[in-house]
Formats: sequence, structure tokens, C-alpha cells
Amino acid sequence: MRIDILTLFPEMFPGPLGSSIDGRALRSGLVELNTVNYRDFAGDERGTVDERPYGGGPGMLMLPEVFTAAVEKVKTPGAVVVLTSPRGEVLSQALAAELASCGHLIIAAGHYEGVDERAVEEVVDREVSIGDYVLSNGNLAAMVIADTVIRLLPGALGDSESAEQDSFGDGLLEFPQYTRPPVFRGRAVPEILLSGDHGKIREYRRGLSEALTRERRPDVWEKFLTNEGIK
Amino acid sequence: MRIDILTLFPEMFPGPLGSSIDGRALRSGLVELNTVNYRDFAGDERGTVDERPYGGGPGMLMLPEVFTAAVEKVKTPGAVVVLTSPRGEVLSQALAAELASCGHLIIAAGHYEGVDERAVEEVVDREVSIGDYVLSNGNLAAMVIADTVIRLLPGALGDSESAEQDSFGDGLLEFPQYTRPPVFRGRAVPEILLSGDHGKIREYRRGLSEALTRERRPDVWEKFLTNEGIK
Repeated sequence: MRIDILTLFPEMFPGPLGSSIDGRALRSGLVELNTVNYRDFAGDERGTVDERPYGGGPGMLMLPEVFTAAVEKVKTPGAVVVLTSPRGEVLSQALAAELASCGHLIIAAGHYEGVDERAVEEVVDREVSIGDYVLSNGNLAAMVIADTVIRLLPGALGDSESAEQDSFGDGLLEFPQYTRPPVFRGRAVPEILLSGDHGKIREYRRGLSEALTRERRPDVWEKFLTNEGIK
Repeated sequence: MRIDILTLFPEMFPGPLGSSIDGRALRSGLVELNTVNYRDFAGDERGTVDERPYGGGPGMLMLPEVFTAAVEKVKTPGAVVVLTSPRGEVLSQALAAELASCGHLIIAAGHYEGVDERAVEEVVDREVSIGDYVLSNGNLAAMVIADTVIRLLPGALGDSESAEQDSFGDGLLEFPQYTRPPVFRGRAVPEILLSGDHGKIREYRRGLSEALTRERRPDVWEKFLTNEGIK
């Protein structure tokens, strides 16, 4: 897979994507990560990429020519162009899986006051938000999207890692887990986990996952029931 | 404000937090950011911090002694300890504001298979998730939480930046914006934005924000109506 990240801070990348699962995927060639600096597409010698918005208001907007030129420089036929934006569809595990299935993903980091709307209409396929909170700019959002996508690529996870039991993998929050010592500060590991009865352990964990999801995330629980055809 | 980040990859920080708004806040002393390496609290010479879970299953868990020792090393009276976790409450602008009001925030990055549950019960105040998707580990989540918090500190935003007009600042998605040129690839800037009539422009933008929120995020729209006392 090829991922291009468009940003004003190319030095930030791969950064957090260079370690752990993503770092391994990058080194093994499973994914090719490139960065593109918007500033290289400025139309003047001063490197101007921003301008004040028509109609007034605080902050600056990215110039439409700069943004479209940067995207069109790297775009290949079939590439999917994602713009990080608080107005976008909210990232989910399903969306990450969808993006992981495209051969070439272009992630354009937004400035927090945004990109000229006409440039968005012209070259962006999907606007994606990582959540309902305000970030300084789209770089962390771009990293989050890239991370969720890369770890889903076939071969990215090692033998000891599993996508299946994670929270959201089966539509439920993950059950609590325990490791040694058997007693920590007076708190014992639940006895059933030491029983060796894998059928019972599976049942016990499933019950905890369901209870936790119902209690902490009624919205996720409702979605789970709908998907399972229970509701 | 003081922020401590507990991680197995301290070299990643400040990283993306070193530029832009966060970088300025760090350099000006508005926020003091420290990193703590879990590995420094390993109980053996090999630096072991992980162990297989009781009851079986893929992946490793962070040892309860290591995790609690790292937290307790930096904890001050009144400090709030956040653990990044897919099972946590979902980060929102309101939660970011709450965290920004505490003088000392400790953000413990989780490994993706998690921390021994007893350690969580012992020292964690809040488990926080940045969204319903699976990340390789909690480092990006820790950065996202730190970014949303830092930019809310009084004095973090410059004159040209504003927290008020951003998406979610007023409970609505942000309206589309435009900058020069007046016509880009045959698309003209909406005429009203060139009128100079600020009252009309405000009304126009508000209408767009409301329409966009209704259309793209019915959940956010419902919450807005409730908060405004309309519903």
C-alpha cells in the first residue's frame, strides 16, 4: 500500500508511525509512506500557502491552488483522497478497514481553520474527523488515520498480536485482563482465570465484555444488538 | 500546568506537540511536559514490563507493579491520572476543558492489549478513548489528549486564532469558508461574503453551520438542540 501525507510539518512524519507495528510495516515495505509539504506548492517566493477568509473571521485558510496542486502532484488513478476535518465523517474501525483496502491513500492534514471549500469540492473524496474535539491542526489526525489503517494491512500484526479480541473488533468493549502476580496489593486475580477451563473462561470474559459495553457505552451496545440481529 | 506522559516510547515526545500552538505553549512555559519511561520501573535487569494474561489469549499486559510504580513516581496531590484505553469515556471538547482545568495531568499511554485491571483500579482516575477505532498503542491517543488540553490553556492561542468559531466550540460544525481568488476553476466565492454586510454574513454562516450539522451529524444536532433548550 502507498500512503502520502500532505502537511506543513513533514518533519513530524513518520515520527510516532516509525515505532511499533507501523514501524515494522514501514521497514518491511508493506506500506510506503511519503510526505508532501504544502509549502512546495506556494505560488510566490515567500512560500505563502494561507490567506484570510472572505467575509471576515479569525484565522487563515489554505489557498485553493496550493491545496489542489499538492494533491494532484501525488494523485494516481484510483487513489482515495482524505482530508482531516472536524466536519468530516467520524473515523470508525469500519472506515479504517475500508481505507486499508485501497491501494493508494492520500491523507491531507487540514489546518484548523480549514481549506478553501472549492478546493475540497474539487479534489477531496472524503472528509474524516477522528472525534468531536478541537486539535491544533490535522497532523495528529493524519497519524491516527494512518495508524488505524496500517495495522489492518495483512501481515502487519505479529503472531502475538491479534486484531480480533480488541475493543470494537467484535463490536464490544474488551473485558478486563490480569497478569502476575496472582495477588497484587490485596487484590486477587479472578479464580476462574486460573482454572484452565477455556470454555468457561471464554464465557466469563464474554459476559464481562457485554456488561462493560452496556454500562459504559450504551450507544455501542445498541449498535452491537442491531448488528447481531437481536434488535 | 504540568503534564506527565507515561510511555514505552519517550523519544516520540514532544514530537508532534513540539510545533505550532503546543510548541509555543511549551517554549513559553505555559505548560511543562515531562515523559516517564515505564521501562525504568521494571523489576528485573532485562527490563520486563509485560507478561502474558491469566486465562490465555493473544498479546501481553503491562505488569501492575510497573504501571503503579511509574504513576506513583510522578503523582502529586490533586493530580488527575488518565489512562488511554479503548474502553474509556470518549474524548470530547467538554472533557478536554475539564482536564485543562487541573493543575497536573498524568497521561498514561496504554499498550493495546492493556494494563492489569487491578493497577487501573488502584491508580487511574479516568480511562479515556479518543474514538471507536483500534490504535497500535496509546501514544497517539496521549498526544491527542495533550493537544486538545494544551490549546485550551489561557494564553495558548494567538490573536489570529480563535477557539470560538471552531467546530464544536458552539456545538455546531463549522461553516464552509473561502479565500482568494474570487473565482477558482470556474467556482465563484458566494457573493454575500464579498458584501461587507457583517450581520448578513453572520446569519448566512450560521444557517450553513446548522444545515451541515443536521445533514452530516444528526447526533451532534440533537445534542445542540437539547443544550439550547429547543428540545
